[in-house]
Amino acid sequence: MRRLLRNPVRLVPIGFLVVILLGTALLTLRFATVQYERTSFATALFTATSAVSVTGMAVNDTPNYWSGPGLVLITVLTQVGGLGILTGAALVVLAVSSRLGLRNRLLVQAETAEYGIGDVRWLLVRIAATVFACEAVMMVIVAGRLWLGYDYALGEAVWSGTFHAVQAFNNGGFNLYTDGLLAFSRDPWVSMPLSLGAIVGGLGFPALFEAARRWRQPGRWAVATKLTIWGSAVLLGVGFVALLTAEWTNVGTIGQYDVRGKVLASFTQIALSRTGGFAVLPTGSLSEESYPLLIVLMFIGGGSASTAGGIKVSTFFLLGFVLWAEMRGEPDVTVGRRRVATASQRHAITVALLSLALVVAGTTALIVLTEGVPFNRALFETTSAFSTTGLSVGVAQSLSDGGQYLLTALMYIGRVGPLTLGSAIALNTRRRRYRYPEEQPIVG
Amino acid sequence: MRRLLRNPVRLVPIGFLVVILLGTALLTLRFATVQYERTSFATALFTATSAVSVTGMAVNDTPNYWSGPGLVLITVLTQVGGLGILTGAALVVLAVSSRLGLRNRLLVQAETAEYGIGDVRWLLVRIAATVFACEAVMMVIVAGRLWLGYDYALGEAVWSGTFHAVQAFNNGGFNLYTDGLLAFSRDPWVSMPLSLGAIVGGLGFPALFEAARRWRQPGRWAVATKLTIWGSAVLLGVGFVALLTAEWTNVGTIGQYDVRGKVLASFTQIALSRTGGFAVLPTGSLSEESYPLLIVLMFIGGGSASTAGGIKVSTFFLLGFVLWAEMRGEPDVTVGRRRVATASQRHAITVALLSLALVVAGTTALIVLTEGVPFNRALFETTSAFSTTGLSVGVAQSLSDGGQYLLTALMYIGRVGPLTLGSAIALNTRRRRYRYPEEQPIVG
Ligand SMILES: [K+]
Ligand SMILES: [K+]
Repeated sequence: MRRLLRNPVRLVPIGFLVVILLGTALLTLRFATVQYERTSFATALFTATSAVSVTGMAVNDTPNYWSGPGLVLITVLTQVGGLGILTGAALVVLAVSSRLGLRNRLLVQAETAEYGIGDVRWLLVRIAATVFACEAVMMVIVAGRLWLGYDYALGEAVWSGTFHAVQAFNNGGFNLYTDGLLAFSRDPWVSMPLSLGAIVGGLGFPALFEAARRWRQPGRWAVATKLTIWGSAVLLGVGFVALLTAEWTNVGTIGQYDVRGKVLASFTQIALSRTGGFAVLPTGSLSEESYPLLIVLMFIGGGSASTAGGIKVSTFFLLGFVLWAEMRGEPDVTVGRRRVATASQRHAITVALLSLALVVAGTTALIVLTEGVPFNRALFETTSAFSTTGLSVGVAQSLSDGGQYLLTALMYIGRVGPLTLGSAIALNTRRRRYRYPEEQPIVG
Repeated sequence: MRRLLRNPVRLVPIGFLVVILLGTALLTLRFATVQYERTSFATALFTATSAVSVTGMAVNDTPNYWSGPGLVLITVLTQVGGLGILTGAALVVLAVSSRLGLRNRLLVQAETAEYGIGDVRWLLVRIAATVFACEAVMMVIVAGRLWLGYDYALGEAVWSGTFHAVQAFNNGGFNLYTDGLLAFSRDPWVSMPLSLGAIVGGLGFPALFEAARRWRQPGRWAVATKLTIWGSAVLLGVGFVALLTAEWTNVGTIGQYDVRGKVLASFTQIALSRTGGFAVLPTGSLSEESYPLLIVLMFIGGGSASTAGGIKVSTFFLLGFVLWAEMRGEPDVTVGRRRVATASQRHAITVALLSLALVVAGTTALIVLTEGVPFNRALFETTSAFSTTGLSVGVAQSLSDGGQYLLTALMYIGRVGPLTLGSAIALNTRRRRYRYPEEQPIVG
């Protein structure tokens, strides 16, 4: 055990696992369900993993299956997952000992991918403060709107506002309505706070804090920050326009809305679904060309060390720069007057290809484990689970236990990161003391 | 024009284009069809591109639409495409002048990815001799079997044997039967010569010649040869076992065959379809899990400088080694006691990602251009066209002109290679005289 824990890269997967198992145990208890019944282990594990990994994929009708306490538990699991287990653990250590050892400091830095912002303790305080401040603002606006505009009782409005604010900011994806947020997709007082919260939460603190600190000098941002901020803007913009175009005349989604409604609903769908996984428009009724679009956007995901999953925006755009350099025949990959280290390039490539391999393998396995699911739906559901997005075309609801375990594993791997997990398993601590002669094989 | 041609990287795409346009012009003539009618430009362009790029995808019923002279023309276009335009052109130059200038020599080396096998002239002779010898052996066995076992007239048997031998060795994929080679899938006298020919042709001459020369010392093969030979064996083996398992009880394909029939038909399907694109089992009736399998195998394709397309076997397995090194935390990527140059790694990555991007974009475009095609079928057809495999789930037969042009473009790009084409467009001939400071952005 001691030897297992000595390597920090192994602590992240183990930490997530512990919280998931704890959540699973609590969710199997009778108090968590409306019917006061025992939930099966497979379903409890799926739901706990879905919450902790901030995926939000559900195998049953969330508001009618889980009781009030069950939903509070899901909220807490989402918040714990969203803050990052190690960040949370470090906060506790901080409160108790008010002092972090070097090892914990390094661990927190590994989890938050922090790059020289300063003191870890101060960073944790700022992270927590930002999270709760954002969530509070979102909650107040949404709850106020539900109270004043939809005749909710005040308590009910506050509960719904809190639940959805936590879910949206953490890109959690669970919601309290059987048809998702469809009813609010054209109400900017509800959809905008949630959308903006999901976008901010999906950028990640490293990029967010640097952009906030140097907002006058975007040219001096770190490469990762530039890639994340501009890349997210591009993905949001392209996704919004593409979705709007694809769905414009689709009566199953926004076809019968007026222009303002079409624009609002499309923006909400992209902002909340792309990484957040909230059901906004009915996912099963989208135009055929919207599926590849959403699959690609889900696969890319959000910012590094954010509540969003996927291969990450910076990874995707860095690979774009690598391609461009190779096509131009240039030896260096440069992003905004900075040469990108080959180690970063190899890291980005590994993350992307490993993720791709897992999605392909997961899709095939899901087809084998599930009778009669065509592979486009299996691909959608697998990508959604792996990228911890949580959008569903309905496959998750009709899964066998085997299929549930498969998607559970994908959500877990997706949250921990396939490379982190792969490294935890394959890491070679023995260093090679010699190098083999170089060869330049012709490929492609 | 002179400036355009000065850069060798631009000659390959232009060379293919010229032959395709020539073939298109001939195919629009009345003599090429059974009905003695004019073929539309879109269809003629599609068919010429399909033949020259050795894809073999067809938009009409090949044996009942094209006349005898038309089919001979398709055979010639396939053979020209399979030999490689530049190899063919160099052969003509050789025959005329019996002497190659330095530029031509370099060009042929670029196209055949030749690595130090020796003199170009001798290489070309060996390539041509190998191709025609293999095709002759295949033709004799297949024609003999058709003559003796299927009551074909001798002339008919020779024609069918020649047509299918040329198609199989070049991974061309056209065939003379409306239901493909289904009738012969369990007859080893027909299926084995074609399968082995397709496998050998799909390995590519660089790997083939080195493996043949040093067959006693596989440990001393070049990295690219090792990756191609062992990788192809792995893909064939895994593909065969996976397909056999997936289809074992599927009455639409091999479910009602005896064990020997199941084994033979599955092997033939993998050997002839994976890169060759011959229809063996009815593609539309395969089990759902066979589609992701075939899509992945088509996308990977065959050997470098072979008649097969895709990202190439060596690219795929080299990326596997890159992933493994990154997971192990090792600075060098080593394959069989050789360190792989970072330039090769970046090349492999670019080919894979550019291909992936083109398949995704092509799939989306095909959905937009084609009414009512679900995206799994669009993905299959796009991957097949781009990887010049030519297998079809039937989308190609019902395409609009726009859809035909799209698949035509994908076959062309797939044959030329997206990186070659991208470089031809984006190549930067001006060298930068300074390097920017390095940064190591955190991604993933
Ligand atoms: K999510
Ligand atoms: K082919």
